[in-house]
Amino acid sequence: MAYTIGLDYGTNSVRALIVDVRTGEEIATAVWGFAHGEEGILLDPRDPNVARQHPRDYIEGAERVLKEALAQAIAAEDFSADKVIGIGVDATGSTPIPIGKDGIPLAFGEKFRDNLAAMAWLWKDHTSYAEAAAFTEHAAAEQPDILAKCGGTYSSEWFWAKILHCKNTAPEVFQAAHTWIESTDWIPAVICGITDPATMKRCVCAAGHKGAYNPAWGGYPPAAFLGGLDPALAEVRATLPDACHPVGEIAGTLSAEWAEKTGLPAGIPVSVAAIDAHLGAVGCGIEPGVLTRIMGTSTCDMIVHPEGEALEDIPGICGIVPGSILPGMFGLEAGQSASGDIYNWFVSHLQPGGTDAGSHEALTRAAEALQPGESGLLALDWNNGNRTVLVDPRLTGLMLGMTLHTKPAEMYRALIEATAFGARMIMERFEEYGVPCQRIVACGGIAIKNPLVMQIHADVMNRTLEVSRSEQTCALGSCMAAAVAAGPAKGGYASFADAAKAMTAIRPEVFKPKPDAVATYDRLHALYKTTHDAFGLKGSQADCYPVMKELLAIREGVG
Amino acid sequence: MAYTIGLDYGTNSVRALIVDVRTGEEIATAVWGFAHGEEGILLDPRDPNVARQHPRDYIEGAERVLKEALAQAIAAEDFSADKVIGIGVDATGSTPIPIGKDGIPLAFGEKFRDNLAAMAWLWKDHTSYAEAAAFTEHAAAEQPDILAKCGGTYSSEWFWAKILHCKNTAPEVFQAAHTWIESTDWIPAVICGITDPATMKRCVCAAGHKGAYNPAWGGYPPAAFLGGLDPALAEVRATLPDACHPVGEIAGTLSAEWAEKTGLPAGIPVSVAAIDAHLGAVGCGIEPGVLTRIMGTSTCDMIVHPEGEALEDIPGICGIVPGSILPGMFGLEAGQSASGDIYNWFVSHLQPGGTDAGSHEALTRAAEALQPGESGLLALDWNNGNRTVLVDPRLTGLMLGMTLHTKPAEMYRALIEATAFGARMIMERFEEYGVPCQRIVACGGIAIKNPLVMQIHADVMNRTLEVSRSEQTCALGSCMAAAVAAGPAKGGYASFADAAKAMTAIRPEVFKPKPDAVATYDRLHALYKTTHDAFGLKGSQADCYPVMKELLAIREGVG
Repeated sequence: MAYTIGLDYGTNSVRALIVDVRTGEEIATAVWGFAHGEEGILLDPRDPNVARQHPRDYIEGAERVLKEALAQAIAAEDFSADKVIGIGVDATGSTPIPIGKDGIPLAFGEKFRDNLAAMAWLWKDHTSYAEAAAFTEHAAAEQPDILAKCGGTYSSEWFWAKILHCKNTAPEVFQAAHTWIESTDWIPAVICGITDPATMKRCVCAAGHKGAYNPAWGGYPPAAFLGGLDPALAEVRATLPDACHPVGEIAGTLSAEWAEKTGLPAGIPVSVAAIDAHLGAVGCGIEPGVLTRIMGTSTCDMIVHPEGEALEDIPGICGIVPGSILPGMFGLEAGQSASGDIYNWFVSHLQPGGTDAGSHEALTRAAEALQPGESGLLALDWNNGNRTVLVDPRLTGLMLGMTLHTKPAEMYRALIEATAFGARMIMERFEEYGVPCQRIVACGGIAIKNPLVMQIHADVMNRTLEVSRSEQTCALGSCMAAAVAAGPAKGGYASFADAAKAMTAIRPEVFKPKPDAVATYDRLHALYKTTHDAFGLKGSQADCYPVMKELLAIREGVG
Repeated sequence: MAYTIGLDYGTNSVRALIVDVRTGEEIATAVWGFAHGEEGILLDPRDPNVARQHPRDYIEGAERVLKEALAQAIAAEDFSADKVIGIGVDATGSTPIPIGKDGIPLAFGEKFRDNLAAMAWLWKDHTSYAEAAAFTEHAAAEQPDILAKCGGTYSSEWFWAKILHCKNTAPEVFQAAHTWIESTDWIPAVICGITDPATMKRCVCAAGHKGAYNPAWGGYPPAAFLGGLDPALAEVRATLPDACHPVGEIAGTLSAEWAEKTGLPAGIPVSVAAIDAHLGAVGCGIEPGVLTRIMGTSTCDMIVHPEGEALEDIPGICGIVPGSILPGMFGLEAGQSASGDIYNWFVSHLQPGGTDAGSHEALTRAAEALQPGESGLLALDWNNGNRTVLVDPRLTGLMLGMTLHTKPAEMYRALIEATAFGARMIMERFEEYGVPCQRIVACGGIAIKNPLVMQIHADVMNRTLEVSRSEQTCALGSCMAAAVAAGPAKGGYASFADAAKAMTAIRPEVFKPKPDAVATYDRLHALYKTTHDAFGLKGSQADCYPVMKELLAIREGVG
């Protein structure tokens, strides 16, 4: 009888999941919405690019959800807290936090308590686009191998761009920080009672995908390279370790303080963390040939490729990092900066047709009655920029084909289709570079809740979409990491493959592509690609003239 | 003491206006909504392109509104019916009616009383698109000068296309008709008691803009040309006069029957008519250098150019017809297929933010608080196609620049801006071909009701926008035509210039361009033009890549 706990930090809330290690059965779960800001996000009304979080929410949240999940589990037969053999952690990333020499976030002190720059810089903060562009330019000139592993462009969502933007715009915060640490790495340290930043283990997942860490060039980028961009970055580099650690390794053991707080046994292993999406892929049972898609407010597309096999650099992909998802495999990450967020924007900001008529449920029902191409609409899924394959946050949404009769449900469906076209662009890029996507396994809120979205993706991508049995794959992945960290002697597993075999599964209901829809979506996808290239790809010479006419022709051919 | 009456036939109703000829003072007005169909339009539930009217509504309406307006005016001091010196008429066009040898519409007989093909074919009937395309193709091959004067494309809304469609789809009606006559020409004939179609004067305005009539090729198109398209059209051509007549000429005199019916003096002159929008331009005081804009659900842009001065063909303009607006001047017509209709679509079809928050008034208030460029949005005004300068109904709406924070009022403002950018395209096309637009005088519902729309147009077009004093400029233009038909001996005027000086005026409130806004809108208009050309202009090679980036840069520079 052994259980593990996954602590899963999302964009708006934290979740604790308790799992039976033998079967993957989920026996208790608790969620707490972050207290600060709007739905847990600190915004700046003057700048839509700002997205920060208060790190105090991470600590308060851990205590709340651990206690609540344990209380639930104790009500279940055969469970007691002493059967918990380990804890795993996942969190969003890149979400760096400026901390002092004492390991405490600057945001906890009086001086910076209201300073947005002293908070956790949430993954989707886009203020650092100029610094990201400068990093890209510098790397192109000085160390192009860094770019080759991250799709050719360093993102404004990532570690070094955010730190440099802080230095440029809030130098008092930058000066006060001893170092910066990803939330993935700070949270395990906190619950293990580790206060010296030098001994806080950094995970290879966040460091590799967001911090330009790669054993190929000796870990984090060389101080000389970073200092050439800005001497201040070389100072930050000096505070970082030489080596980072793979998920499933032990980050530390649960501190007496946190054992006391929660009722868990002190000294149980806490796994080195990973980014939430990456552990979501693990919770989906990722393996070579399986594209896993975490479909929520944004999407994360992940696939693994054996380190022993040849692999080209793939332009436009967020990262290719050895060991970032599973040990012994290249972890490949791609994604869409917004998917569910775009549907939510339409519902919550436009509120079409009044509150009732414009709910997700009502719009989905009406959109379901439409055939592919019937609306005559085409949209781009760039309301939050484009992560893959253009790697450009300075792109925005687009919709065309509207008449004087266009209805909200038609626009809603067009936005769903746009995200599916974007997903297909990612899949095609992987396959073009020799990484096959034979199966697609999805998880996340959208995958479970909206069959229309799933069917449209199946039809657009011309693949059967499978859905993970678990509704909380990120947390499940963390439970698996905990089981690997605990090891077989304590009732855990020797490898992620063993853990996956026991703990993961697919739902019986799958979404198969429909041939008629596939044919229409092939035509629509070509128009999407033309528009995508025209606005997103410098020098593409894409010809937009036929787009509106072809949309009308498709519409007229429907039904 | 002299008065004239304008009879103004719109899409849904007829209006009579009685005006003091010395001052233009409007002393009485009466409106009657047409009785047949939905809001006066006969529809076919199986075909959204159908839009017909019952010609009986024209006769019944004239009697009702003349009587009611006279009754009102008699209550005013110093008025009596014998002081009315003439009547003017304007109506929609092209709105042709099939009539018998007796001048009576086929719809009045038993045989065709319920036959939609026997009714008046309202201007916005779009059933004849295939025949219009055939006309265009035939003219391109056989007589390209016809196309050169109408922007390169013959429209499905026009005379010959509608007649040919009747012949193709309702041959029994076509066979029964002796000839076809525009409602502009049939109504004056009726009230003058003219029953022989051969002596019903046809106005140069409708014939020139819709019937391909032009003295340059001897009037209506040659029988050989029409017969080449379909021999039946040559038969119709044989029933048409060689010469048409300019507005302000006498069509006939009021019949004893109609004098009896209404109380007006028998024998007063009835002016040759014109299309409503063209007499609206006259009511605005159109003269060379003055672009008049009728701004309602769509817009009509008109300007005149002295016949004595050289004038190139202007591609993309709906029509260039000598004498169609003012005698001795080329009348130039252009327009936007939708403007107010686009704002209405947004409000009535999307219903953003619920009924209250999404009213025109609420959205206008919120949009007013925004600065140019602040939303980061750009739209094309093509929800109903593009009439000028692309002359392409197969274009659709577009909006880009949306983020996850975009609000309805921002989109509403972007749609208003789109119509203003479209208006600027028209103005620039005129000026590029040597027709200066030094002043802009607007009229119509939007011009009077929405100062925000007017200010945005002033800023985008970098012109002061003046608004006509009259709220019923079409009817006022008809009153002016009546005054010219009556002539100075009877208390009228020798010319439209004299009539305009006395009878038209501008409101004291004008909309002046604001330099800051002009500068921002210059940048935004360049992006509009890029997107416009990319989607609307074959082979344009417009480069869309900078559009989203420049919009973000403009947004960041605001405020």
